[in-house]
Amino acid sequence: MSAFENLMAFQHETEALAQVAGRLGWDQETMMPRGAAAQRAEEMGALENVLHTRRTDPRIGEWLAAIDDTALDAVGAAKMRHIRRSYARATKLPDTLAAEIARVTSRAQGIWAEARAADDVAHFLPTLAEVVRLKREEAAALADGGDLYDALLDDYEPGATAAEIGAMFDRMRTRLVMLREKIMASGRNPAGITGRFDEEGQLKLAQEVASHFGYNFKHGRIDKAVHPFSSGSGTDVRITTRVDEGDPFNCLYSTIHEVGHGCYEQNIAPEFGLTPLGAGVSMGVHESQSRIYENQLGRSRAFTGWLHGRMTTIFGDAGAADADAFYAAVNRVHSGYIRTEADEVHYNLHIMMRFDLERKLMDGSLEVDDLEAAWNTRFEHDFGVAVDKPSNGVLQDVHWSVGLFGYFPTYTLGNVYAGCLNLAMRSAVPGLDDDLARGHTEAATGWLQEHVQRHGGLYEPKEVIERACGFEPNEGPLLDYLDAKFGALYGV
Amino acid sequence: MSAFENLMAFQHETEALAQVAGRLGWDQETMMPRGAAAQRAEEMGALENVLHTRRTDPRIGEWLAAIDDTALDAVGAAKMRHIRRSYARATKLPDTLAAEIARVTSRAQGIWAEARAADDVAHFLPTLAEVVRLKREEAAALADGGDLYDALLDDYEPGATAAEIGAMFDRMRTRLVMLREKIMASGRNPAGITGRFDEEGQLKLAQEVASHFGYNFKHGRIDKAVHPFSSGSGTDVRITTRVDEGDPFNCLYSTIHEVGHGCYEQNIAPEFGLTPLGAGVSMGVHESQSRIYENQLGRSRAFTGWLHGRMTTIFGDAGAADADAFYAAVNRVHSGYIRTEADEVHYNLHIMMRFDLERKLMDGSLEVDDLEAAWNTRFEHDFGVAVDKPSNGVLQDVHWSVGLFGYFPTYTLGNVYAGCLNLAMRSAVPGLDDDLARGHTEAATGWLQEHVQRHGGLYEPKEVIERACGFEPNEGPLLDYLDAKFGALYGV
Repeated sequence: MSAFENLMAFQHETEALAQVAGRLGWDQETMMPRGAAAQRAEEMGALENVLHTRRTDPRIGEWLAAIDDTALDAVGAAKMRHIRRSYARATKLPDTLAAEIARVTSRAQGIWAEARAADDVAHFLPTLAEVVRLKREEAAALADGGDLYDALLDDYEPGATAAEIGAMFDRMRTRLVMLREKIMASGRNPAGITGRFDEEGQLKLAQEVASHFGYNFKHGRIDKAVHPFSSGSGTDVRITTRVDEGDPFNCLYSTIHEVGHGCYEQNIAPEFGLTPLGAGVSMGVHESQSRIYENQLGRSRAFTGWLHGRMTTIFGDAGAADADAFYAAVNRVHSGYIRTEADEVHYNLHIMMRFDLERKLMDGSLEVDDLEAAWNTRFEHDFGVAVDKPSNGVLQDVHWSVGLFGYFPTYTLGNVYAGCLNLAMRSAVPGLDDDLARGHTEAATGWLQEHVQRHGGLYEPKEVIERACGFEPNEGPLLDYLDAKFGALYGV
Repeated sequence: MSAFENLMAFQHETEALAQVAGRLGWDQETMMPRGAAAQRAEEMGALENVLHTRRTDPRIGEWLAAIDDTALDAVGAAKMRHIRRSYARATKLPDTLAAEIARVTSRAQGIWAEARAADDVAHFLPTLAEVVRLKREEAAALADGGDLYDALLDDYEPGATAAEIGAMFDRMRTRLVMLREKIMASGRNPAGITGRFDEEGQLKLAQEVASHFGYNFKHGRIDKAVHPFSSGSGTDVRITTRVDEGDPFNCLYSTIHEVGHGCYEQNIAPEFGLTPLGAGVSMGVHESQSRIYENQLGRSRAFTGWLHGRMTTIFGDAGAADADAFYAAVNRVHSGYIRTEADEVHYNLHIMMRFDLERKLMDGSLEVDDLEAAWNTRFEHDFGVAVDKPSNGVLQDVHWSVGLFGYFPTYTLGNVYAGCLNLAMRSAVPGLDDDLARGHTEAATGWLQEHVQRHGGLYEPKEVIERACGFEPNEGPLLDYLDAKFGALYGV
């Protein structure tokens, strides 16, 4: 066998084992008996050790040295791009540091949860300082003298830079704050929906909606979990949802969101399965799929019209006066502290704030002791309200406790990509709203499958969006879409 | 670290990974999307490769050579006994042969299923001949010049020999055939229960019964699957059941059976977790626990009285005239072709037949071409009826297709051990029937936990039974129990 064939065979087993780890993670959140956590940590640790050993196996280095990428076809070259990047990252990071990060973040997550429950920032800060120190050390090991934040960001969004994202976010922020203020000043305050919506009906409708968005139950399943997520690639892509009987949008829109993630994984070309191309190419592109399913399609006037009808049939009453009131309720803009509950207008403001703060934590211009004050000042400026307590402020997200620095901006990047894709898709798919009004998304999701999803890891993140859209991705289409949609809804 | 410590740390990870493989197997039978089978085979294959590589790792040989077992305490010595045995087995078997067996048996299982569905023995025989040839080759590699069948049996029941088991089975067979004939000649033919028992009620009652038998839901769960099984060790031990709305005993007694297996695993001393002592010590001892829960406890007059009351409450009608008729229905002796549907009197006759036939296949005194005729002749002699079709005869069990030679006798060994344990337990636990009549099994299962289950792999199989009972295990107590129970039921 050639070095390339040996490497691909080795990689195939590694990818298969990574899928096993994913399945174990799914099980932990859905099926695992509650007393099995300690043993599961041992099981997961053993599997992670196997994966780490494989990812840093010196034979990979030998194979990489022996392979001439320029002699390969586009698919082979793309596989090499992924393997070279991940091998370089894996071997740059000292084993002792990786182990210390794993140990500290595992403990930090528990301390963060305690601090959030007690609204006690001081309880979390020493641990956060340790996490920040270790992540800076990790970034330094990875950065080769370059920007520390970029070195972390690269793990989630290969090729992206903080400078480029930061410049774009600054342009967006001005327009978003302006839109937010106009909406708040409009005097319009549409009602949310009212009523109780039984769990069984919500889960049945969630399954139906998932099918309507093209989720393939032959290669997936939906279960309840505390947090909605999507897990797995190829022919085994599972999603979770949750139910609040007073708020059916929680279940329905988190389902549509995860269906977007899940369809991306399910629709990657089967020949990429268990290769480095067999998963979504970046967090940003992943989020573009979940967001366009959830927002540009799922929260459109046309689709909510269909949903209003289905909810009326299933629950007797959809909790709104008519389809227009239902649409206004789905898209209600409201001040709120919590990122995960934010509407389309506020959401990106949450992200930009976190991005700016975590960049400063990484470049050392902000100390963790000053983080809460910086958070609260920025929040009041951008959101027009003061943070009332840490659990509604700096303690709300798990990310920093588990060391996810560089992850937050991919959420807004996903929204930006979704805005671009929506523009291109709407011009490529005529009569889309007529379809959506009948609950049909095939034309839209088919376009996304063809132009984005099936490529998996074949192209670089930005490249796949640019190829799909025919223009370089930028924030304009998203902001135009938000201005138009919410301008109409709020008469501003 | 000493060689012993290194070996134990290595073994700990191997045990954790083996648990992961078990969890994956559970998922495959309960949760996996139906289109994920091919990908799952890749995932499982990758994990099995990891396990195989670890089990034959040359470092184990070095550590084993450096460790003086006589310097260890009893627990350390027991761990070494398991590791030495499994390393010797793993390294004696050539990789190419192991791979060929895996390949052939995987294909053979499909061909067997086709043959059974079509009642076409000839379709299966060439493949079975190949499996037999490979298993003889495997046995020769393992046997070091000893008995081929013993070498295979040793994998399921360490220390047992076919000669000893064969002699015991011959003694049992005479008495069992006689008991069977007396029952059949008794003229009594108690009715089964009648009615429909809805799935929800059955599953609810199965959960309740599992709790009554001490199954710990904090460390386990019950799901539906095509075949009932138990899976996992320590704090994550899951069982499955199935539901036939016309036959609630199917669900209830397979649940109690699997609860016996599950409790054995759940109750092993926690300090043995993820060590070679952290699982049931042999198939025979495992089966002793499932059988004593299912039969000596679950099918006792006292416990069925309680069950009759619960079923009457849950379903309105338990399908029998009174508690005595219910007890007779639970323990109805009936001629039948199928091992898995057999009553306590017939069951061991099924096993003995398979044991004698597979021993002959292994020693070469029976050719696969003559297997069906040998099966049918023996069946008619022992069961008094002629086999009507291969799917009710030689094709009924999956075992031989997947290479499980030497496994069958452990079922009856389990029954023999259960008979011994029942005798000892009844003398150690006064008032047991009064407890059972109120649905309480704690005194009985507590005795089993203390005397059998908590020891895990600490003692050799026969030793753990002998220590619990105070006498050398033998077939007498089981046969006495069957004579007494069925003699009373059938007036013989």
